[in-house]
Amino acid sequence: MDATSFYRIALDVMGGDHAPYATLDGACLALTNHPELFLVLVGDEAKLLPLLKHHGLVGELSSRMEIVHAPTVVTMEDKPTSVLKDKKDSSIRIATQLVREGKADGVVSMGNTGAAMVASVVVLGTLDGVYRPCLAGVIPNMKSCPTVLLDVGANVDSKPEHVAQFALMGAIYAEEVLGVARPRIGLLSVGEEDSKGNETTRAAAAILREIEINFGGNAEGRDIWNGNFDVVACDGFVGNVVLKSSEALAEGIVRGLRDSINQSLRAKIGGLLAKSAMKRFMKKLDYAEYGGAPLLGVKGVSIIGHGRSDGRAVANAIRAALRACEHKVNEHIQESIHRMLPASTTGSDIR
Amino acid sequence: MDATSFYRIALDVMGGDHAPYATLDGACLALTNHPELFLVLVGDEAKLLPLLKHHGLVGELSSRMEIVHAPTVVTMEDKPTSVLKDKKDSSIRIATQLVREGKADGVVSMGNTGAAMVASVVVLGTLDGVYRPCLAGVIPNMKSCPTVLLDVGANVDSKPEHVAQFALMGAIYAEEVLGVARPRIGLLSVGEEDSKGNETTRAAAAILREIEINFGGNAEGRDIWNGNFDVVACDGFVGNVVLKSSEALAEGIVRGLRDSINQSLRAKIGGLLAKSAMKRFMKKLDYAEYGGAPLLGVKGVSIIGHGRSDGRAVANAIRAALRACEHKVNEHIQESIHRMLPASTTGSDIR
Repeated sequence: MDATSFYRIALDVMGGDHAPYATLDGACLALTNHPELFLVLVGDEAKLLPLLKHHGLVGELSSRMEIVHAPTVVTMEDKPTSVLKDKKDSSIRIATQLVREGKADGVVSMGNTGAAMVASVVVLGTLDGVYRPCLAGVIPNMKSCPTVLLDVGANVDSKPEHVAQFALMGAIYAEEVLGVARPRIGLLSVGEEDSKGNETTRAAAAILREIEINFGGNAEGRDIWNGNFDVVACDGFVGNVVLKSSEALAEGIVRGLRDSINQSLRAKIGGLLAKSAMKRFMKKLDYAEYGGAPLLGVKGVSIIGHGRSDGRAVANAIRAALRACEHKVNEHIQESIHRMLPASTTGSDIR
Repeated sequence: MDATSFYRIALDVMGGDHAPYATLDGACLALTNHPELFLVLVGDEAKLLPLLKHHGLVGELSSRMEIVHAPTVVTMEDKPTSVLKDKKDSSIRIATQLVREGKADGVVSMGNTGAAMVASVVVLGTLDGVYRPCLAGVIPNMKSCPTVLLDVGANVDSKPEHVAQFALMGAIYAEEVLGVARPRIGLLSVGEEDSKGNETTRAAAAILREIEINFGGNAEGRDIWNGNFDVVACDGFVGNVVLKSSEALAEGIVRGLRDSINQSLRAKIGGLLAKSAMKRFMKKLDYAEYGGAPLLGVKGVSIIGHGRSDGRAVANAIRAALRACEHKVNEHIQESIHRMLPASTTGSDIR
């Protein structure tokens, strides 16, 4: 394979609760699965070098990777804006900088979500015509394909035209990266009828009805889980609250069931017999399957994974970045945005 | 007991998916449990009379009830405003009217939530000084006491002062009806720090910090479930989306686990052995335990239950109405609102 045909993904090796071990495991898995991948591992070189062999990053795999040194790390306690101030030499900032400089096609981080967003928005900049970049949650539902819920936290107080663009960008991600043909778009609201909603959703619906997309009208809270819509668009305040609440609820149910089962011997034996069946279902609900949330609308591919990601989740996030590059997601977003915008308003306009 | 010492609750016997059977079961249970209760059963007399005996409404119990005839029913398909137009003679409208006329102290309905809200707000009117009545979800959490989440659907596009009042009213309900001493109040937002939130939450927080209540700052989505706050206040759009999404997620997990367990004999046997332990936990998550959502801020007690309520849920909703009457929830709300409002703005002002 010609060197120029590789896709170069910059991985923030130091980001995440289990970094650098989980990120290095993920790097090995991703390089093994994707011969078209070249990985740029960004992190503390002195710490990383002794670990490579143990994580299988040797032989052919190591010929498709390089290390770029970054002396500091943004921790979960650091403010998101630290990447613009005292943590300019952090792994997430330097990894993002590589995309900006054309030395990588995409960046993947499992670190501080806010910092990763700030780095991507400020360093990469916003695609021409995109009002506001947004974070897309790729959420397992009760059917086989995930629901793309967006925005889940990049923006609050979104205007109707922002939410309409989120829907558009989410649909392109669902189609190109998740392989959903003609994704069905819903607008998160408090009832199915067009009249239900708040000022923002009613105005956003009016915009979406005018655009040539598969717009299915209002989605309700339950539609995030039942698979009735492939893409569900909302303001980032609402999306963030729903995402965090759902994660806590699902974890609480699983933990509560386990604790209750462990209280009697009879139930414990039952639990052991049913364990693999229960695990099979829980795997369906595992966010790690889809590997992280894309930040859509920035100039370059940026995937932000869950802090708790293990090696498989990291590899899946890298795969998502790779697919977004291969399928030229940003070019498609750019085209759609230009088709959507009235001629007078093209040009970047971050309101 | 003196006739005047009874609390009179009007029950919309025809409302709900399993009406009138579940409502009559609930009526019997509530009358049995609460000797201080007098029930006014509002519904189609010709349909109800032949059913009373079968549902145990005989003897002493029947001496503490009466039937008020209502010829029509608001169905789940009817518009909420139907109670103001062609369904003025519906059971929910007539039951609410009884409270307005002083013939009942509170109203309980398991029917069309929108219609029940419209009937209560329009027929009963708003308490002096309350900007907007709100619907409070009483939600089981992973601890022993429920979380009061409000507003869950009465208002969208709430202003900061509305949300602050929701918090205040929710705290009074938690204290008086659920028995929580000095309930801890949170404001639903996208991060713990004061700086996180949208325009509405930041302004609402500023108001709440000035009032003498136990305000714990921002709550995140996960805090609805972990019991860190007794009361979580938000705009009704957000609350409604979170509530519907959570309900669907919890049901989906339970159904998914059951389906997965039923796919193999081994897991099925395990499931049978663990069944009672699993049921014990799921009972903790059962909304029926707390019996419906109070509509707070109207002149009179109004409890709106889940359409799917069974007899136990109906009885618990009646108990909630009874407690709200006994503990004079509305008087407490009125006092708090007056303490909170600047002197110049007292007086009803529905913005």
